[in-house]
Amino acid sequence: MNKELDQVNLSCGIDSNITGCRFSLYPMTDNFVDIILSSLEKTDISNVWTETDALSTVYRGKSEYVVDAVEALFINAYKEDIHMTIEGLLSKGCPGDSKGDVKMGIEGKSPNQELIKDIHFPALCKFSLYPMGNDNYMDEIYDIVDIAKDKGLNPKSIHYATRLEGDVQDIFNYFGEITKYLEVRISHYIIHFTISVNSPTVED
Amino acid sequence: MNKELDQVNLSCGIDSNITGCRFSLYPMTDNFVDIILSSLEKTDISNVWTETDALSTVYRGKSEYVVDAVEALFINAYKEDIHMTIEGLLSKGCPGDSKGDVKMGIEGKSPNQELIKDIHFPALCKFSLYPMGNDNYMDEIYDIVDIAKDKGLNPKSIHYATRLEGDVQDIFNYFGEITKYLEVRISHYIIHFTISVNSPTVED
Repeated sequence: MNKELDQVNLSCGIDSNITGCRFSLYPMTDNFVDIILSSLEKTDISNVWTETDALSTVYRGKSEYVVDAVEALFINAYKEDIHMTIEGLLSKGCPGDSKGDVKMGIEGKSPNQELIKDIHFPALCKFSLYPMGNDNYMDEIYDIVDIAKDKGLNPKSIHYATRLEGDVQDIFNYFGEITKYLEVRISHYIIHFTISVNSPTVED
Repeated sequence: MNKELDQVNLSCGIDSNITGCRFSLYPMTDNFVDIILSSLEKTDISNVWTETDALSTVYRGKSEYVVDAVEALFINAYKEDIHMTIEGLLSKGCPGDSKGDVKMGIEGKSPNQELIKDIHFPALCKFSLYPMGNDNYMDEIYDIVDIAKDKGLNPKSIHYATRLEGDVQDIFNYFGEITKYLEVRISHYIIHFTISVNSPTVED
């Protein structure tokens, strides 16, 4: 057993509602650093704990604030003519999680919504849900896909993932809703997602 | 229940050794399309079934050939001065999988290794393993992290993932080894990974 992992509290995650998102923003342009930094300047991340390394950034806190901050960072980075993606995972309840590195006691409105709510653009998304330690995990996946259908995101089953298409606001709204839905139903889940805008790839 | 998912064979994945990788390559440069297309020209993908859409590409087949093709595409796209990442998932045995869309009856050496084996550069990697439908899933994760330690990849536990650092050859060699290790032990697993080169982010 790995000693480093062995030292963490293997049970605390189960009854904790800490939601985390580990994500990376990829603007496909020479100017990618400026786009990321100026997006960060516009984004209110005061309601989440944050950490960035050379690979990715983590936000941790209440699910509504985590989704709000990731959504704002992506929307604030959008440029009409630049292909950009965000890849990330949303997770709650990992048995290997720690109780630290989090902001939880915050109440009130999500701080970025007023600023970004009128910014609309079309996006493609793929995501996979992993309900852990659960024999009936396929049922949970079908439920989540049904919610996407109800929200008009046209979910399609593709190998290893579900594909969505819609306005960026509707896609993040969906992730906000299913994190709330899952956090009270599943002790440990992970959603991996990729959202893409302005892809030059022409589909048949 | 989602009708589209409902129509697939929900049991065939369990006894199938089809390994798949859904991945996207992100060169952070204005020239990203040329880099991806010229890498594809150099890469032998004849041993895997492939499909590309605007979001990502899927390779499906025997695990050694799938890892070989993804590794070659990434290594062939490498440029010394360009920040690039690949995000992907490796998966075997999904109960929602289909038996089609695959090449399986192929034998012999992985076709790209001779061409790429002498290309070395340092890379950072993060990955997460999800063994599905298994109460003891944390044990499987510890085993995989131990293999990374034995291979000198300096695994570190970070929120929601394990971080590796090393030569790109050693990182892909590791994924080749653990897909072989997992495919005979776990009926359905997924590994999500991101590999990054030339990040401008300075770490403390």
